[in-house]
Amino acid sequence: MSLLERLSFNQITADPWSLEQVVHNCSRSGIPYIAVWRHKLDGDAAKASAMIRSEGLRVSSLCRGGWFSAPTAKERRERIEDNRVAIEEAAVLGAPVLVIVSGPANGQTLDDARATVLDGLLELLPDAEKSGIILGIEPLHPMYAAERSVVVTLKQANELAERIGSPAAGVVIDAFHVWWDPEVMRQIERASGRVAGFHVSDWPVPLPGTLMGRAMMGHGVIELRRLREAVDATGYNGPIEVEIFNDEVWRTANEGLLEQIKRRFLEHVA
Amino acid sequence: MSLLERLSFNQITADPWSLEQVVHNCSRSGIPYIAVWRHKLDGDAAKASAMIRSEGLRVSSLCRGGWFSAPTAKERRERIEDNRVAIEEAAVLGAPVLVIVSGPANGQTLDDARATVLDGLLELLPDAEKSGIILGIEPLHPMYAAERSVVVTLKQANELAERIGSPAAGVVIDAFHVWWDPEVMRQIERASGRVAGFHVSDWPVPLPGTLMGRAMMGHGVIELRRLREAVDATGYNGPIEVEIFNDEVWRTANEGLLEQIKRRFLEHVA
Repeated sequence: MSLLERLSFNQITADPWSLEQVVHNCSRSGIPYIAVWRHKLDGDAAKASAMIRSEGLRVSSLCRGGWFSAPTAKERRERIEDNRVAIEEAAVLGAPVLVIVSGPANGQTLDDARATVLDGLLELLPDAEKSGIILGIEPLHPMYAAERSVVVTLKQANELAERIGSPAAGVVIDAFHVWWDPEVMRQIERASGRVAGFHVSDWPVPLPGTLMGRAMMGHGVIELRRLREAVDATGYNGPIEVEIFNDEVWRTANEGLLEQIKRRFLEHVA
Repeated sequence: MSLLERLSFNQITADPWSLEQVVHNCSRSGIPYIAVWRHKLDGDAAKASAMIRSEGLRVSSLCRGGWFSAPTAKERRERIEDNRVAIEEAAVLGAPVLVIVSGPANGQTLDDARATVLDGLLELLPDAEKSGIILGIEPLHPMYAAERSVVVTLKQANELAERIGSPAAGVVIDAFHVWWDPEVMRQIERASGRVAGFHVSDWPVPLPGTLMGRAMMGHGVIELRRLREAVDATGYNGPIEVEIFNDEVWRTANEGLLEQIKRRFLEHVA
């Protein structure tokens, strides 16, 4: 089996495209999976789901839930309710995983924010279990600790998932976020049975910016094949998402992008 | 005793200033320590040392040694020899610590580069012991893993120092580099007896850039006082360096900068 059968196009890679364009282009390029972002649903997951299915595609994950921390209890409550909606949307889309980006401390201390993340996941767990959705806890690179995620290492994500102790709590491993970690290989192994997703892109040198600076696979220093093999060795054989946040890719996205992704995926990940 | 008695001005904070200006301005502002960068020595550590002593200042550290990894054995050998010179310079300056920034993988794999760092430190150890200089292993923030340091966590620095097992091997804790780490408190405690330096600045939101984006204490999200108290609790009572890489500070550096640093140091670190 070619690794292309596991390829998923995370639609943020071509944010200027509508969901319809993503579906159409991926279908034409023979890419079997897409990862969907909530802001592309226009609040109508059923319509999106019908369109995706009609083109024969499957959804690898819905991005994203989480963002638990907030200065007030009322706001934290609203976050939980929004996550419940996200779980429902994931179920409607047939996405097995809701990617959880925990959010920044956002007015709480770092310790309190981290406790809030665990509390939030525990509160969502019954909904996730009932819907058959995995909450995929994704550690983000530590450079996002202040603005996007107080969960910053795979060890931390593993500890959260172990503490929750349910098949509905897993971890999402994104190469860009974890490659630097001296413990990454040990923690990938530790994630066995709980891997809910694997994402690839690359870390260019120099890094052009913290948010939009990811590169196409092969244009950076990440040992992607080594990480993919380690993830596979845990028994994970699900979709592998290509998720590239890059201004230049957004500006120039055309159908050639998908052919380039397929080629580089085979060259650097397979 | 006021914490100001432990304040050290790391001269990279005002890189446009010559060493002479740094010494003069710090002396006038009553700042007792400075941290010196090698590129400011003009190859004459004895002359620099005499000037610093004549103004009654002490040197908290010399920045920097390390940068061990390289594609060829010949280049790696040159790095070692350059580090030997740095150890001598530190001794001449009366600096108790040579700050070690390990360097990026630089043509090696990440694993090999990390092994090269340990090898390099072990090779330098007899020189450091003979000169009474501590090799201060400084973990850098993981966003510098590709370009500046394969040592990215305090845990990793602790493991290196423990493995070397000499009073001449210590760790340097920079708040900007470690604040995000879920293990930071545990690892600071673990560093007891091996802390060779403590650096402060702040992490602004949003971060304007990876290299030159550090902020003045109090202009960011780092819980500086909490970290300082944890470092003090290990028994460390040495100099605390203010080290701010920031374009704007470089552009506007005047003597008011030192008064601002003293004020903010007392407000946010003491």
